[in-house]
Amino acid sequence: MTVGLWLIGARGSIGTTVTAGLALLAAGAGDRATTGMVSELDEFAGLRLVPPGNLVIGGHDLAEVSMKGRAEELVQAGVLPAHALPLARPALEAVDARVCPGVRGGGRDAIEQIQRDLLAFGDQHDLETVVVVNIASTEPLSPVLPVHEDLAALNQALDAGENPVPASALYAYAALDAGLPFIDFTPSMGAAIPALHELAVERGTVYAGRDGKTGETLVKTALASMFGSRNLKVTSWAGLNLLGGGDGRALADSDRAAAKLASKARSVREIFSPDVAAPVHIDYVEDLGEWKTAWNHVRFAGFLGTPMTMQITWQGCDSALAAPLVIDLARFTARARLAGQVGALDALAFFFKDPLGSDEHRLDHQFRRLVAWAGEFRDGGVRGGSVRDGGVGDGGVRDGGVGDGGVRDGGVRDGGVRDGGVRDGA
Amino acid sequence: MTVGLWLIGARGSIGTTVTAGLALLAAGAGDRATTGMVSELDEFAGLRLVPPGNLVIGGHDLAEVSMKGRAEELVQAGVLPAHALPLARPALEAVDARVCPGVRGGGRDAIEQIQRDLLAFGDQHDLETVVVVNIASTEPLSPVLPVHEDLAALNQALDAGENPVPASALYAYAALDAGLPFIDFTPSMGAAIPALHELAVERGTVYAGRDGKTGETLVKTALASMFGSRNLKVTSWAGLNLLGGGDGRALADSDRAAAKLASKARSVREIFSPDVAAPVHIDYVEDLGEWKTAWNHVRFAGFLGTPMTMQITWQGCDSALAAPLVIDLARFTARARLAGQVGALDALAFFFKDPLGSDEHRLDHQFRRLVAWAGEFRDGGVRGGSVRDGGVGDGGVRDGGVGDGGVRDGGVRDGGVRDGGVRDGA
Amino acid sequence: MTVGLWLIGARGSIGTTVTAGLALLAAGAGDRATTGMVSELDEFAGLRLVPPGNLVIGGHDLAEVSMKGRAEELVQAGVLPAHALPLARPALEAVDARVCPGVRGGGRDAIEQIQRDLLAFGDQHDLETVVVVNIASTEPLSPVLPVHEDLAALNQALDAGENPVPASALYAYAALDAGLPFIDFTPSMGAAIPALHELAVERGTVYAGRDGKTGETLVKTALASMFGSRNLKVTSWAGLNLLGGGDGRALADSDRAAAKLASKARSVREIFSPDVAAPVHIDYVEDLGEWKTAWNHVRFAGFLGTPMTMQITWQGCDSALAAPLVIDLARFTARARLAGQVGALDALAFFFKDPLGSDEHRLDHQFRRLVAWAGEFRDGGVRGGSVRDGGVGDGGVRDGGVGDGGVRDGGVRDGGVRDGGVRDGA
Amino acid sequence: MTVGLWLIGARGSIGTTVTAGLALLAAGAGDRATTGMVSELDEFAGLRLVPPGNLVIGGHDLAEVSMKGRAEELVQAGVLPAHALPLARPALEAVDARVCPGVRGGGRDAIEQIQRDLLAFGDQHDLETVVVVNIASTEPLSPVLPVHEDLAALNQALDAGENPVPASALYAYAALDAGLPFIDFTPSMGAAIPALHELAVERGTVYAGRDGKTGETLVKTALASMFGSRNLKVTSWAGLNLLGGGDGRALADSDRAAAKLASKARSVREIFSPDVAAPVHIDYVEDLGEWKTAWNHVRFAGFLGTPMTMQITWQGCDSALAAPLVIDLARFTARARLAGQVGALDALAFFFKDPLGSDEHRLDHQFRRLVAWAGEFRDGGVRGGSVRDGGVGDGGVRDGGVGDGGVRDGGVRDGGVRDGGVRDGA
Ligand SMILES: NC(=O)c1ccc[n+]([C@@H]2O[C@H](COP(=O)([O-])OP(=O)(O)OC[C@H]3O[C@@H](n4cnc5c(N)ncnc54)[C@H](O)[C@@H]3O)[C@@H](O)[C@H]2O)c1
Ligand SMILES: NC(=O)c1ccc[n+]([C@@H]2O[C@H](COP(=O)([O-])OP(=O)(O)OC[C@H]3O[C@@H](n4cnc5c(N)ncnc54)[C@H](O)[C@@H]3O)[C@@H](O)[C@H]2O)c1
Ligand SMILES: NC(=O)c1ccc[n+]([C@@H]2O[C@H](COP(=O)([O-])OP(=O)(O)OC[C@H]3O[C@@H](n4cnc5c(N)ncnc54)[C@H](O)[C@@H]3O)[C@@H](O)[C@H]2O)c1
Ligand SMILES: NC(=O)c1ccc[n+]([C@@H]2O[C@H](COP(=O)([O-])OP(=O)(O)OC[C@H]3O[C@@H](n4cnc5c(N)ncnc54)[C@H](O)[C@@H]3O)[C@@H](O)[C@H]2O)c1
Ligand code: NA
Ligand code: NA
Repeated sequence: MTVGLWLIGARGSIGTTVTAGLALLAAGAGDRATTGMVSELDEFAGLRLVPPGNLVIGGHDLAEVSMKGRAEELVQAGVLPAHALPLARPALEAVDARVCPGVRGGGRDAIEQIQRDLLAFGDQHDLETVVVVNIASTEPLSPVLPVHEDLAALNQALDAGENPVPASALYAYAALDAGLPFIDFTPSMGAAIPALHELAVERGTVYAGRDGKTGETLVKTALASMFGSRNLKVTSWAGLNLLGGGDGRALADSDRAAAKLASKARSVREIFSPDVAAPVHIDYVEDLGEWKTAWNHVRFAGFLGTPMTMQITWQGCDSALAAPLVIDLARFTARARLAGQVGALDALAFFFKDPLGSDEHRLDHQFRRLVAWAGEFRDGGVRGGSVRDGGVGDGGVRDGGVGDGGVRDGGVRDGGVRDGGVRDGA
Repeated sequence: MTVGLWLIGARGSIGTTVTAGLALLAAGAGDRATTGMVSELDEFAGLRLVPPGNLVIGGHDLAEVSMKGRAEELVQAGVLPAHALPLARPALEAVDARVCPGVRGGGRDAIEQIQRDLLAFGDQHDLETVVVVNIASTEPLSPVLPVHEDLAALNQALDAGENPVPASALYAYAALDAGLPFIDFTPSMGAAIPALHELAVERGTVYAGRDGKTGETLVKTALASMFGSRNLKVTSWAGLNLLGGGDGRALADSDRAAAKLASKARSVREIFSPDVAAPVHIDYVEDLGEWKTAWNHVRFAGFLGTPMTMQITWQGCDSALAAPLVIDLARFTARARLAGQVGALDALAFFFKDPLGSDEHRLDHQFRRLVAWAGEFRDGGVRGGSVRDGGVGDGGVRDGGVGDGGVRDGGVRDGGVRDGGVRDGA
Repeated sequence: MTVGLWLIGARGSIGTTVTAGLALLAAGAGDRATTGMVSELDEFAGLRLVPPGNLVIGGHDLAEVSMKGRAEELVQAGVLPAHALPLARPALEAVDARVCPGVRGGGRDAIEQIQRDLLAFGDQHDLETVVVVNIASTEPLSPVLPVHEDLAALNQALDAGENPVPASALYAYAALDAGLPFIDFTPSMGAAIPALHELAVERGTVYAGRDGKTGETLVKTALASMFGSRNLKVTSWAGLNLLGGGDGRALADSDRAAAKLASKARSVREIFSPDVAAPVHIDYVEDLGEWKTAWNHVRFAGFLGTPMTMQITWQGCDSALAAPLVIDLARFTARARLAGQVGALDALAFFFKDPLGSDEHRLDHQFRRLVAWAGEFRDGGVRGGSVRDGGVGDGGVRDGGVGDGGVRDGGVRDGGVRDGGVRDGA
Repeated sequence: MTVGLWLIGARGSIGTTVTAGLALLAAGAGDRATTGMVSELDEFAGLRLVPPGNLVIGGHDLAEVSMKGRAEELVQAGVLPAHALPLARPALEAVDARVCPGVRGGGRDAIEQIQRDLLAFGDQHDLETVVVVNIASTEPLSPVLPVHEDLAALNQALDAGENPVPASALYAYAALDAGLPFIDFTPSMGAAIPALHELAVERGTVYAGRDGKTGETLVKTALASMFGSRNLKVTSWAGLNLLGGGDGRALADSDRAAAKLASKARSVREIFSPDVAAPVHIDYVEDLGEWKTAWNHVRFAGFLGTPMTMQITWQGCDSALAAPLVIDLARFTARARLAGQVGALDALAFFFKDPLGSDEHRLDHQFRRLVAWAGEFRDGGVRGGSVRDGGVGDGGVRDGGVGDGGVRDGGVRDGGVRDGGVRDGA
């Protein structure tokens, strides 16, 4: 089984780390190489996930900088080990050559351009399916409009030549409409509107998101269970996030930061309660390079209301935290698609700050849900079909059938673009 | 149902906070009063635990200082709210009057003295059972001797007039031998030797321990699951604990600190792996008063081995963290005793740094175990008996029967001391 | 020598702490009572500063809450020791009775009302001079207008019935115009406009400010010298300030916070360089009560540019830090006024985040300047006059004479209000 | 002027960083290269210090590892920039070739071996003087013996074939006896015994030490002035130091750590007061590599005794902090030697945790002292001689004359070894 991993924002830090990392894994680069990959835990053995070595990477980006150049910066910053460069160079060059120019916005045309790129990629590499993952720069917060509420209205607007959604949602539309899984690792709109949920269900495909949970929120949702199970009441949780790197630079734009902050705040409110004071800030601090430092200050009440304090400083390398999760998500999502699942993959809430289809934020509960869900793949008998049955053999979009995840036989080519399936199917 | 809570070290910070806290609860002292009490969580509703208001406190101590004086210090330190004093004074005075002189060591005589005190307490208050909880100053680390390995050998040594165990184990012996539950909230020896396990089983009673998990280790075992489920490898975990208060003063003695450090180190090794560097220190810093500050510095490896860092500063009030857990433990343990359980209560591992009968350290797993275990009490049908059946009606020690937790009908009086049950039964 | 200390915002946390503190000092309340008072250091012995016991407090406030009520809250919060209340009650009640309704804004009328209150106070207590200190809630950032640039223009606007300045500047005007010293402990406008500098010089009085340096900035300016003298280059300095209390509540208003943040940012730019990234935030976290926590994250470059990190967490009680400095400032300023100094007291830069009349921010340099400056008072021979000469004997405002600080003989009454001195003198 | 810099422990992290750093400076390696060098501050312009490019490095070491290999590790660890390696390689190889086998202990023979090495070095490079700097692994704490108290006794013991001092003192003896300056950057004994002070004075040379102040103590002595000038009373100062690297490995040996801890504790007691609780720990945490993390927890009392807290986390690269100071010390010390100074250079206290000849610990005071002292070199007229006069022209040890620092004309060759000057002179 060969699966495509199509990265929106492929030339960024995460994309480059994913590419270099898979190359190092393929080269057998030491016993710590798979550290951080959830799908490599014993709990997920025997699920017939696509092996990392069978992932073929492609993507969209707006930037012209070469992935090799980016990788050198990541070595300097201590994100990639120095021995990575010579080993990863061929892979970086090969993937770089597959990166197509992305879109900044647009309507029907942009969607079709994206689908043509996905189609060509699937064709060329003879892929079982292609998982599309958004790791592009966070977009400014988009207003949710009435036209986002149902698919008919959205299609009508697109047909009328309007541009009713931001770029992330165009990528999501293109992927889902082509019967492909879509994952949003950013807080951008992506698939998180009812119209696109409808589209995913109609095309019989899956989506998951959003905003990868890699640092401050990871800790928050781990400690939430601690406070909860000890009946200790959190009364405030304040945070300051300092970021260098490309992501930091993008978030220095306060409109973009707004999307991130909204995602963070939503989770605090849902984890604790709406009356917990939870101020949170993001700052771009260029000299941190590819690193991130988050300070969290937590006040909680103990017996008889006695107030106590906990402080956490997290110094992580965001790309090294995110990259393995992107690979995990591709593996789990491809498996779910091929097993015939449909709609939002709420069982992947474990990976996200703002989980679509779920309002469970406690990390331990999310993990158990993930383990239980994935366990069903062990016997292969998920929702009436082995991987082969679910995965191939009939055109996803062409006949609207659930239980199909294929690019090879149908997918993009037949249902998606050539036959005009997108509009017909809607 | 009225249950005794017998505190070894009753006049210390925890004992005073337990006493004042129960008085405030009885006075209906505001909605945050039960914060920190695990047994008050929804998960434990309907278990027919003894209501906090039905706990009668007594204890042993070596100190002469009045609990009222201690409570005033705790108000000054911000552990107890200022309005607590007038409300709690009667309770503090009443309990103080019930505190008997403790033992520093000794042999058979000491055990018998302790049992006489327990007996008198049970008689006087007509108690269903008495849970004995050790919250005395941590003892210096005791060597484990051959004589600790089985009950016959231990009894032989005691009969020969030897003093083969430290005070904590004398208390444990006295309690278990009288068919009463024993809990060790300290890292002292207590019941943690095979000979006393044997005694507990023989007398059909339960024990749990040891070393309450209230701060640094609580956080450690909460985060252990986070790192584990994300496949992030912890490579070192260093800690410095600064303590004021009586506990800090006791631990300024490096022999006593050794016991505490051993308990902490054991848990780190068991949580992570023996090759994780985990230096840990305890210092007495008088000006911290009743407060404790712990700093933890964690290094962990992410994808491709990239090293990252997390730091945690915990500023807690140990007594306010410990007191509600002591109440929880009394409630759960009394329930288990009355339901006829026997031996080490491994399901209480959630409460301890060095859990007896269990090697599970991950907090979330411990909590689920606790919930599952306690859930069996909901229907009353645990191990063949309702609470009444299990609790009363036949002499615990007298006939060695499992399924009996009583002081009233048998317990201390018949089996324990008067009839010489201790030696006969052994 | 008896000196008045007139507090704008007297009923706030600082005002109450100043009042209670002076009462405790008078009662001889233990050897740590004068801790935090700079003027009590050996370096300042023999300067003939007004003894703390000879300070008479009065003030303006908008709030109706009693200082006694406020003091109770401060005891609860651990700012004042519990034994303070009975000792301080008489003083709190006496001062409370002297607090007059303040102004929220206005023009000439407001100024005159303020002056009448100052006059009455000076008369009633037979004061050598009255130091007016602004410790009212921080005002929103005021635009600097052309009319602030010279005194004639400002007076013209006031005469035309306009309200060209915020309340803090009305208080400053009233004080300076009456020949009294004015100190701004807040980042509000106060005396920090050229027109009021002119007024101070004309009336022969002094002023100082602004924004008391009590926490984050104190540390910053202490460490600035460390980095500087080691030739280590600070590249970023990020900070998050969490405040409870009245000040926190006021600063939750983003307009008011703007003034504070501007003051903080100015100092960072001046201490290091304009290109140091120095994001700083203030959040109101109610559950911190009277406490403040600031986290600072500093990146600096060492040899060959190697980047390193320092983090600082400061957990202070703002009122306990500010109150002794307010007393210090009153003592030093009264001394300078009576010694005939005029204009901005740049030697007091040591006390302020945004020092008026100085651009020295390094704490050690500021301290040496303060010591040198104050040393001149030791011999009494500052600028041609003993204290008596400078302090009394002729009407400050009446004849416009420099070298006069008196309320008793002239000051407010003659020069300020009754004789219409304010307008005449201008 | 060409000056030798002889490093005891040359192949360690500091030695390698000094060597690579000087090579980068010589190559003009960017504007941040001199960061961390105190002697490059404006305050020290015009002092005719030896230019960094005129320092010739040699040294002793026990290790066989090549400095080039060490430098590669330092690049991996982020201490040296990646571009450093190609630039520094020639220098590293050249210096490596000059490193002679050191001594682990011994007596007269060891001293003579060291002096022969110094002599050969001075001869070969035609050096004005040679500054010997101890940067070898910290030695276990040595007991101070009667024989250390005066030079005659020490010489007698040496003559009797005894080994009365540890290696560091042998190096110090060898250097001083040869009329060369000796600096101890470690907490080892070095020159810090009366006998060696006597020797330095007799030979007319200088020494300084000890234990470079690069991290925790640097911050401590910077903040000491802040607390002091604000009259805030520090009541406790606890610290935990986590070190990787060779220094950490050496200090994992508790005997060696004892020397370091003694040095740290001495400074706290002298900075604050003997009754400040100041527990401090050092742990070896291998995964920190060349980095060091220190956490400090400070309690201090403010007005009316209110207790407050400050925490500091310092994440520094010890070698990058130490290396520029070693260069500074060489420059200042060579200058002082050539200017004819004699004995302990107390003005260099700024650089040391445990300053010899001084009990001033406050960083700002130390810096002012350094500036004032160094300022005297500006006019060249220090203690009766220009550099040339002081530096050369007559044999240091041969005739015991003060005012001579030379290797070229006398120094090692004449006074030290060939003429048997050591024993004669004593
Ligand atoms: N790293 C983490 O831990 C983490 C966690 C949660 C979310 N995220 C999100 O992941 C995203 C990627 O992070 P990164 O650190 O790789 O950022 P980055 O800035 O290094 O890379 C982003 C890439 O996206 C490209 N891009 C921007 N707009 C695009 C568009 N319309 N179409 C195609 N490409 C586009 C950019 O050219 C750039 O190459 C960000 O949105 C970030 O907020 C990251
Ligand atoms: N507070 C926590 O969070 C926590 C967590 C884990 C363990 N513990 C342990 O709980 C114990 C109590 O803590 P604390 O803060 O109340 O201490 P404390 O010092 O305030 O009180 C201990 C009391 O035990 C008494 N005592 C000492 N030896 C005795 C003996 N042989 N017999 C009877 N009484 C004796 C002392 O007189 C004192 O009153 C300590 O061992 C501590 O290590 C506390
Ligand atoms: N505490 C510190 O360390 C510190 C440091 C620097 C600056 N400051 C500044 O000092 C001021 C006082 O701080 P606080 O903690 O006492 O605040 P607070 O909120 O407790 O007290 C402020 C008082 O000012 C009064 N007030 C508001 N507007 C007024 C007006 N126009 N006229 C008269 N009174 C008025 C309020 O009624 C209140 O009683 C704030 O501006 C704060 O920013 C404090
Ligand atoms: N780096 C700092 O910030 C700092 C600050 C204060 C003190 N120090 C001290 O500086 C010293 C050097 O630090 P480092 O990080 O370079 O250590 P390191 O372990 O990397 O190097 C020490 C070197 O000394 C050599 N050595 C040991 N014994 C010797 C002997 N008897 N003769 C000759 N060489 C010997 C070792 O072989 C090694 O090459 C240590 O003692 C350390 O405590 C360092
Ligand atoms: Na959700
Ligand atoms: Na200024």
